[in-house]
Amino acid sequence: MIDQICEIDGFRFNAVSAGIKDVGSTRLDLALIATEAPAVTVGLTTTNLVYAAPVAVTRQRLAGGRCSAILMNSGNANAYTGRRGMEAALQLTGSVAECLDVAPELVIPMSTGVIGNPMPTERIMQRVPALVNGLAPEKLMDVARAIMTTDTKPKTVSRGVELSSGPCMMAGVAKGGGMIAPNMATMLAVIMSDVNADPVFLKDALSRANRVSFNAITIDGDMSTNDTVVVMAGGRNDARRLTGGADEEAFSALLNEVCYDLAGQMVRDGEGATKFVEVRVIGAVDEPSAEKVARTIAESLLVKTAFNGEDPNWGRIICAAGRSGVPFDPDRLDLFLGDVPVVRNGVLVENDWESAAHSVMKRPEFSVTLDLKNGSAQARLLTTDLSREYVSINADYRS
Amino acid sequence: MIDQICEIDGFRFNAVSAGIKDVGSTRLDLALIATEAPAVTVGLTTTNLVYAAPVAVTRQRLAGGRCSAILMNSGNANAYTGRRGMEAALQLTGSVAECLDVAPELVIPMSTGVIGNPMPTERIMQRVPALVNGLAPEKLMDVARAIMTTDTKPKTVSRGVELSSGPCMMAGVAKGGGMIAPNMATMLAVIMSDVNADPVFLKDALSRANRVSFNAITIDGDMSTNDTVVVMAGGRNDARRLTGGADEEAFSALLNEVCYDLAGQMVRDGEGATKFVEVRVIGAVDEPSAEKVARTIAESLLVKTAFNGEDPNWGRIICAAGRSGVPFDPDRLDLFLGDVPVVRNGVLVENDWESAAHSVMKRPEFSVTLDLKNGSAQARLLTTDLSREYVSINADYRS
Repeated sequence: MIDQICEIDGFRFNAVSAGIKDVGSTRLDLALIATEAPAVTVGLTTTNLVYAAPVAVTRQRLAGGRCSAILMNSGNANAYTGRRGMEAALQLTGSVAECLDVAPELVIPMSTGVIGNPMPTERIMQRVPALVNGLAPEKLMDVARAIMTTDTKPKTVSRGVELSSGPCMMAGVAKGGGMIAPNMATMLAVIMSDVNADPVFLKDALSRANRVSFNAITIDGDMSTNDTVVVMAGGRNDARRLTGGADEEAFSALLNEVCYDLAGQMVRDGEGATKFVEVRVIGAVDEPSAEKVARTIAESLLVKTAFNGEDPNWGRIICAAGRSGVPFDPDRLDLFLGDVPVVRNGVLVENDWESAAHSVMKRPEFSVTLDLKNGSAQARLLTTDLSREYVSINADYRS
Repeated sequence: MIDQICEIDGFRFNAVSAGIKDVGSTRLDLALIATEAPAVTVGLTTTNLVYAAPVAVTRQRLAGGRCSAILMNSGNANAYTGRRGMEAALQLTGSVAECLDVAPELVIPMSTGVIGNPMPTERIMQRVPALVNGLAPEKLMDVARAIMTTDTKPKTVSRGVELSSGPCMMAGVAKGGGMIAPNMATMLAVIMSDVNADPVFLKDALSRANRVSFNAITIDGDMSTNDTVVVMAGGRNDARRLTGGADEEAFSALLNEVCYDLAGQMVRDGEGATKFVEVRVIGAVDEPSAEKVARTIAESLLVKTAFNGEDPNWGRIICAAGRSGVPFDPDRLDLFLGDVPVVRNGVLVENDWESAAHSVMKRPEFSVTLDLKNGSAQARLLTTDLSREYVSINADYRS
């Protein structure tokens, strides 16, 4: 395992300030990821019925299977902006394509920010030449900074694994912040690798990684109009092609890890979050049942405020499970806060569990485990507490 | 229409302090409603898989169709308390029955408060004689006070209507506070009338009233282990019996009003609520679709925090609708804040809507209307904003 190298062969990066959020500000808000040659590219986009113009363009262009660049911006989601929004997305990616001298279909747009405002297309266009001219292999962190909205930290990850053809490197960049939720709500993520891969395999690997990472986090249950996660395999020759089971398995495991790492960064940086909690439901009949119970617990406002108050109010956890719609026998449940047993076979334990459980909840990161004793399936969800700061951030966001 | 009379023929009330929450406190926490003769009684209880001992007892006893008394307490939900919890509920109602000289099956228990703590049965038993001896027609407000938990105001309503047999009075008492949510979450309500009614008609009337009142409110999406709403028809002779269509219709309309009034009081008194918002979805294919969209909007944390910030962030409303799972055409939507049009046929209006919409949201009560233009069905939900105070109340509740 090779860690923490933020350059990746075949990719260049840059970010500039285009005044998208605040005219005249020097804050980075426009970013570009470019490959030296068209890279095998697959992706997943929001399942929200209302999706942004850049998502519509991305879906079309992902169908081509390859891409050369990703243009990203914060400050404006270009969502619910009608025909003009589509024109803006096409015009901006077209301008990048021209500067890079590639076909416009090879450039994917990603936007994040306020919904419903027209994109300041003119202002952005003026910055595209500088964005392209400044591309360099070592600027991934600038991209991470440029796509932040209410994120407090830039999010990148870089890892490697040894394959039969030599070392394989993978780097990722993402933004999370608000609305982290079911079905990978408001997040943008780009994961890059220096190997060459079959697109069908890559799409399948991404779907599996997504399920246990971006789709297994929740902060407030909302899902955005712009969620997009893309994987690019930028390996430029056949010597770097993934071949056969062992290498594909190692690559998939690495992709899982990279996605889980980015998802964890998003949750830890959830709006106003002070606790990072893994909700585990075990002993379920099947995975969907386990996930449904875990999600109902992880999204319960009463559970999340109890996390915030470091209050081992286990009744709220059981109560949330009970309204999940999943059948179980309340008299058989086991519940643990961290590794402290609180309920055994549906009965509150007799000993002094409370101070031990309270100690667990004082930690910045802990787990909650509920055993339904219905079967052997399980699920885990990453969530946060709900704090006064969350409310402050979201009550004041636009005003 | 006769308003604001809090005595109701055939019913007596009392409340005492039993130190259920705080030993030695003089806070009212034990209440009794008693009829002069067994009254036709119907009810609805929580759909949470995990339900409290008093709910189990209430379900059994409602099957008998009549009841003479309701014993209510705050401070302890008697939920997830196992065999001992059942014993406590039976012992306490038995003690009340003995003092009232009625069969124990005629006494219904209702509890609200913390989950998982054993009931202080001994302490409560000692107060039962005083509770029964002090029964009086004018003490309904004491009952309302005794069942408050995080409620800041006691909740009662009293209304009348002229029937063919003479005036019909109806009074209601309820507690709401925290967790007001789908499927009538954490609420206790008792509605009393001085007429005689057929139990089948009464149950049907309650189900219909419940759907447009207690089931149409949401504060935080949680549902409690103890929710119970009961209607008692205490009319003691056939002269007071509801007969025929017109009287039954007038009675049903009165019941709808009384339930809607109590539900509105609960929402207005939602934990930390500063805004009381009616979310209306119109133009839906059918009522369940309308309700699903309305509920997704009404429960969205981002929408609720925008309400709190008086921020006309309409994008969050459309975004929530988009993830509701209900199909519609985003390009045909109309959206109103109060009566201010914000979106028309999927496009943000051109004029200066923002200051007008902001004025609407500055009011303590306003509405949001989304027209899906898919059909003619509609639904309305009452909800609140999400405030820093909500978090404070719930983070500190038990500690």
